Amino acid sequence: MAFLTHLTCPLCGRFESADRLVNLCLCGSPLLVDYDLDAVRRAVGRETIERRPADLWRYRELLPVTDDKHITTFGEGWTPLLPAPAYGASIGVPRLLVKDESPLPTGSFKARGAAVGVSRARELGARHIAMPTNGNAGSAWAAYAARAGLRATIAMPVDAPAICRRECAAAGADLRLVDGLITDAGRLIAEFVAGHHVFDVSTLKEPYRVEGKKTMGYEIVEQLGWQAPDVILYPTGGGVGLIGIHKAVAELRRLGWLDGPGPRLVAVQSTGCAPVVRAFAAGRETAEPWPDARTIAYGITVPAPLGDRLILRALRESGGTAVAVDDAELLADLRAFGALEGLWLCPEGAACLSAARRLRAGGWIGPSDRVVVLNTGAGLKYPDTVEFPNNWCAR
Amino acid sequence: MAFLTHLTCPLCGRFESADRLVNLCLCGSPLLVDYDLDAVRRAVGRETIERRPADLWRYRELLPVTDDKHITTFGEGWTPLLPAPAYGASIGVPRLLVKDESPLPTGSFKARGAAVGVSRARELGARHIAMPTNGNAGSAWAAYAARAGLRATIAMPVDAPAICRRECAAAGADLRLVDGLITDAGRLIAEFVAGHHVFDVSTLKEPYRVEGKKTMGYEIVEQLGWQAPDVILYPTGGGVGLIGIHKAVAELRRLGWLDGPGPRLVAVQSTGCAPVVRAFAAGRETAEPWPDARTIAYGITVPAPLGDRLILRALRESGGTAVAVDDAELLADLRAFGALEGLWLCPEGAACLSAARRLRAGGWIGPSDRVVVLNTGAGLKYPDTVEFPNNWCAR
Repeated sequence: MAFLTHLTCPLCGRFESADRLVNLCLCGSPLLVDYDLDAVRRAVGRETIERRPADLWRYRELLPVTDDKHITTFGEGWTPLLPAPAYGASIGVPRLLVKDESPLPTGSFKARGAAVGVSRARELGARHIAMPTNGNAGSAWAAYAARAGLRATIAMPVDAPAICRRECAAAGADLRLVDGLITDAGRLIAEFVAGHHVFDVSTLKEPYRVEGKKTMGYEIVEQLGWQAPDVILYPTGGGVGLIGIHKAVAELRRLGWLDGPGPRLVAVQSTGCAPVVRAFAAGRETAEPWPDARTIAYGITVPAPLGDRLILRALRESGGTAVAVDDAELLADLRAFGALEGLWLCPEGAACLSAARRLRAGGWIGPSDRVVVLNTGAGLKYPDTVEFPNNWCAR
Repeated sequence: MAFLTHLTCPLCGRFESADRLVNLCLCGSPLLVDYDLDAVRRAVGRETIERRPADLWRYRELLPVTDDKHITTFGEGWTPLLPAPAYGASIGVPRLLVKDESPLPTGSFKARGAAVGVSRARELGARHIAMPTNGNAGSAWAAYAARAGLRATIAMPVDAPAICRRECAAAGADLRLVDGLITDAGRLIAEFVAGHHVFDVSTLKEPYRVEGKKTMGYEIVEQLGWQAPDVILYPTGGGVGLIGIHKAVAELRRLGWLDGPGPRLVAVQSTGCAPVVRAFAAGRETAEPWPDARTIAYGITVPAPLGDRLILRALRESGGTAVAVDDAELLADLRAFGALEGLWLCPEGAACLSAARRLRAGGWIGPSDRVVVLNTGAGLKYPDTVEFPNNWCAR
């Protein structure tokens, strides 16, 4: 199982060995993983993959773990792609689909990156990992680290979803609460790893999390019969999933497993933290840090994403766009979706509904477009997004 | 798709039509669903089922929905059966497996009963359902009812997990909070349905929830290569899953799809509410109501299960047993499992670990037994089972 060949810097083009623990390129850019796709094509076909177990390891040849014994798993992946006909009709997008990531371990899509990232870190000899997080990534990496027998140090803003603190504690992680944003937590982790033998697994600071996240792209295409949808809306904080889906589509195309046009990728942000939206609109290649970032969609409160260039490139190469929505709007869509379809979305997922509604109203999404919205986590991790009447009844 | 033939009373033997909405048998017992298993055997084989999508509808011929258009789904089922080698070794059960139901919609195994129960209720013409719940069943039935376009009235004790209230609200259900136990909530619902055109879907008061729950049994057997484990430990409140797994095993055997011995079924309860354990130990056929029921494993706080006879019969026919564990014990096992395996179990699932440890220590479980523990829901729905240190760091 060694189709992985090396790491490449998407910015300066430098090659890097994949045989040891490594963070950024010397130029400061994230590194991406390359495979011998010709060899993959000879080794496996779509029909073989279709018959494999329903988890993300069905794409084994396109994942970076060399020896099966390092695979650290809770059976993650192959999440449902759900039609949402009632809500879809209400916003003029009858072919709306929700890729529902809430069934994943620790209740969010972060489990994909953690499964692959922890498996590979373990394979390359890591004993202790550390990261800043907006909550869900910490929950996921703490769980997989425990399963792999690694120590985990997690730094999390105090405003992150409270349940994520307890998830880290449940997995025995070393948790640090930070009175600030994820950027502040990142500084704390950078200081921590400098003085210890600890592998920094911050967003895009190691190359393997993207490999887990890209499986969302593989799954969506396979679930549609090896076709791409017209549009994929993705709630964009660090943007790893967007970069991953774009990479997945490119790999599938080079493998000859995807015909026809690719999906137009849409980065969805909050009006309270929209660095990518602003940079996209201005035609820039990088994003300026967003001051005073604040939104109820806490997972996308990332004022200065390290992958800004890669995100903006993915949007432009795919013919996509970037949209910001406000909290009141996304909460209204979250509640409407729950009442019509029964599924409690996370606020980040609901933001994508608001963006789809806007883009349809403006004509950017057409009436017959097949549109996939990423629901990146379980609504129940964000209890305050739903109120309930206090109908007490006497005994 | 009409392999469903009729309903049968397991107590008095009476047949009942399956063509209309019905609750209990005239004799007061729950009714169970019968199929033409000879016709099923001619129509489908194990190899066909193995190639189907990874959800509980893969057992389509053994489920009670006649027309596919009534299937109400979020893609539920086919949950992972996870090895737990580190924790298993620590309690002397190296072949320990956890059937992890936390990935199901609304984060618990109640989604299975709700998916099948709501689909069938809708097919038979229900427009409004009502039920009492200890929390998770209400969350699940509210979600599926919304997805099916049905109204739902849910009565829930105020001590039930707080998150379940919000889940009901997120799905637009009519929620009533009851200052009492599930028995009190049941009385409220009985009064409510008497005055309205509402279908009572209380535990075992309609025959189709068991059909959804029994798919746990099918899945465990199929995931082990069409073999039964030696022991299955099940946290027993209303006991629907236990009755369902027992029914599933009997059906698989009659279909010729399961060879060898069946699983010994273990009902796990809390020392704070153990009506089944007491009745089993005393050799009785029915359970006395448990006074002052109280445990942190809230889902099994059922002082007077309607299915007591069926539960006790399943334990005795399978060569099983019944065990009560206390809250301190299950919390210790919950934390130990999280630290060793990374998965945050629900307290009801953790109770099964404690029971497995005890049964192993007493020799009832042997050192080479393959033992399946049901983790019936996500730990994150019970935040108070885990504490965390307040490691605040300055910005």
